[in-house]
Amino acid sequence: MAMSNDRAAQSGEDRLIARYFAPLAKHPGAFGLADDAAALAPPAGCDLVLKADGIVAGVHFFPDDPPDTVAKKALRANLSDLAAKGATPLGFLLTLALPREIGDAWLAPFARGLGADAEAFGCPLLGGDTDSTTGPIMISIAALGAVPQGKMLRRAGASAGDRVVVTGTIGDAALGLLLRNDMAAAERWSLGREASNNLQQRYLVPQPRLAIAEILRAHASAAMDVSDGLAGDLAKLCRASAVNADIEVARVPLSAGARAALAKEPALIETIITGGDDYEVLACVPADKIETLRQQASAAGVPISEIGVVAAGEGGARFLGSDGEPLAFSRKSFSHF
Amino acid sequence: MAMSNDRAAQSGEDRLIARYFAPLAKHPGAFGLADDAAALAPPAGCDLVLKADGIVAGVHFFPDDPPDTVAKKALRANLSDLAAKGATPLGFLLTLALPREIGDAWLAPFARGLGADAEAFGCPLLGGDTDSTTGPIMISIAALGAVPQGKMLRRAGASAGDRVVVTGTIGDAALGLLLRNDMAAAERWSLGREASNNLQQRYLVPQPRLAIAEILRAHASAAMDVSDGLAGDLAKLCRASAVNADIEVARVPLSAGARAALAKEPALIETIITGGDDYEVLACVPADKIETLRQQASAAGVPISEIGVVAAGEGGARFLGSDGEPLAFSRKSFSHF
Repeated sequence: MAMSNDRAAQSGEDRLIARYFAPLAKHPGAFGLADDAAALAPPAGCDLVLKADGIVAGVHFFPDDPPDTVAKKALRANLSDLAAKGATPLGFLLTLALPREIGDAWLAPFARGLGADAEAFGCPLLGGDTDSTTGPIMISIAALGAVPQGKMLRRAGASAGDRVVVTGTIGDAALGLLLRNDMAAAERWSLGREASNNLQQRYLVPQPRLAIAEILRAHASAAMDVSDGLAGDLAKLCRASAVNADIEVARVPLSAGARAALAKEPALIETIITGGDDYEVLACVPADKIETLRQQASAAGVPISEIGVVAAGEGGARFLGSDGEPLAFSRKSFSHF
Repeated sequence: MAMSNDRAAQSGEDRLIARYFAPLAKHPGAFGLADDAAALAPPAGCDLVLKADGIVAGVHFFPDDPPDTVAKKALRANLSDLAAKGATPLGFLLTLALPREIGDAWLAPFARGLGADAEAFGCPLLGGDTDSTTGPIMISIAALGAVPQGKMLRRAGASAGDRVVVTGTIGDAALGLLLRNDMAAAERWSLGREASNNLQQRYLVPQPRLAIAEILRAHASAAMDVSDGLAGDLAKLCRASAVNADIEVARVPLSAGARAALAKEPALIETIITGGDDYEVLACVPADKIETLRQQASAAGVPISEIGVVAAGEGGARFLGSDGEPLAFSRKSFSHF
């Protein structure tokens, strides 16, 4: 079952790997996928940061999504975690389960997208495995990163008085998913073609915030990526840190498209705050470090918004409306399960 | 999609992880699966050895196989590679895709089997992910091991004059699979209940040869695990090392059950030599080291058999019958694909 690049190979798996994946394995320790395992010298004095995440066709992505975006989403979901933990990517392993009808028309763009992202994010393919399945496509990625020893950012660590910040904009992917499932929504929300496309693109291809991994490590007290919805993920961070957090909903950063949709349909605030697939970073930062963080992140091209404050308490998150009252959501977290 | 242990969690995924997998995450860097990633300090002066391998219900195992053996096979397939590469396990990440009908009756023994093996082989669960799927169960494992820097055993490295050795016995799992699919075979082969069970057990639960990882590293010039059949895997090793190998089929070590079956049905030699799932180690060893290797491996409880010799050449493997003529196989390697 090994992923191996063997020119005289007999099997379809070997041919597939030689054709599509061996060219991506540029790290010398991947041995061109021509051995049974990869060898990697970890940076001296570092902790490894390890993350595995899988996506399944029909559950996490649409079977007819462009294959290059599927590859990018699979890798970026993991890179987003590495970024939020303050880690620099070292490489990844891929396990791919493919129905028999999947051929070149899907694999060629899939491998192209994966290779482009491996290059762009400095995260080479180190090895893996392809298997056939009678079920849907499944892509499982295990990503390795590194942080200076003991310095991985945790969910735990936030203190009363810390400010709560997020990168980028929140809710776009969840609105993009609604648009994908309901073509009429764009009209209802008076979205032009570009705004509608932007939201859908945010669902298809997240943007891991690796550019500020080191900056986060220097300034944040706690961090995680927002993949299961801001409300649910903040609640997890609060519980891990044993603190409360009060968020001012009006300060949650929204894209132009999300603002337009929300103006037409105010109930969308729940989708925005609880929807999944943002892949932005949620962090808590001591008040005296927030300006430095903002400036350094901005210089790295990543917008940071302060959305609330951490308070002593039992581990809950409140989202306060413009009247200062907490919003009640029918569901707190997004789960594919 | 993160694997996380969150007591106040909303999702089925979180409950499942808290119940079945968090208790297995005993390594301090797994944070009880209560963070987004694991942190692991790699041993100083070591290379990481990285391997990912997946198994799919209906392809690599039977849907009604005992769940504890499914877990063990998924982990052991990876540990077998680490052993053959000379590596000591550090831990593993798990990605699990589950159909919705999978419940406690499957998950409880699965987690029990996985936990027992994680303990037995000193390879703790560090993190992972569970997902729902409309397809069959898929278990993907990424395992990390360590070797002294630059010392990972490769497929490349064998030289003319080296001896070819294998651990344990060959062909049992392939015969076990035949028995599983053809109940009448046990009678045809005059196998008693115990011999028949032994062969089937070898298919269900392989035995990774971690006990001799360090011994292999000290003495072998090249090594890999035999997972896709001895003939095909030896051919891969020969091509990577750019050598030939001549194997005396009569010296290939067989279990009592395999010998009995072969005596009744001589054509089974092809199944034995080309069948998959042995998970034994195939290694090439300089002639002057073979006795030391054999003694040290024996002291570690692992039988080693010399089955042939490496010769200069273009990278092929021949299996010679008792008349000295090469056997012709209709297929050279086993592939699930």
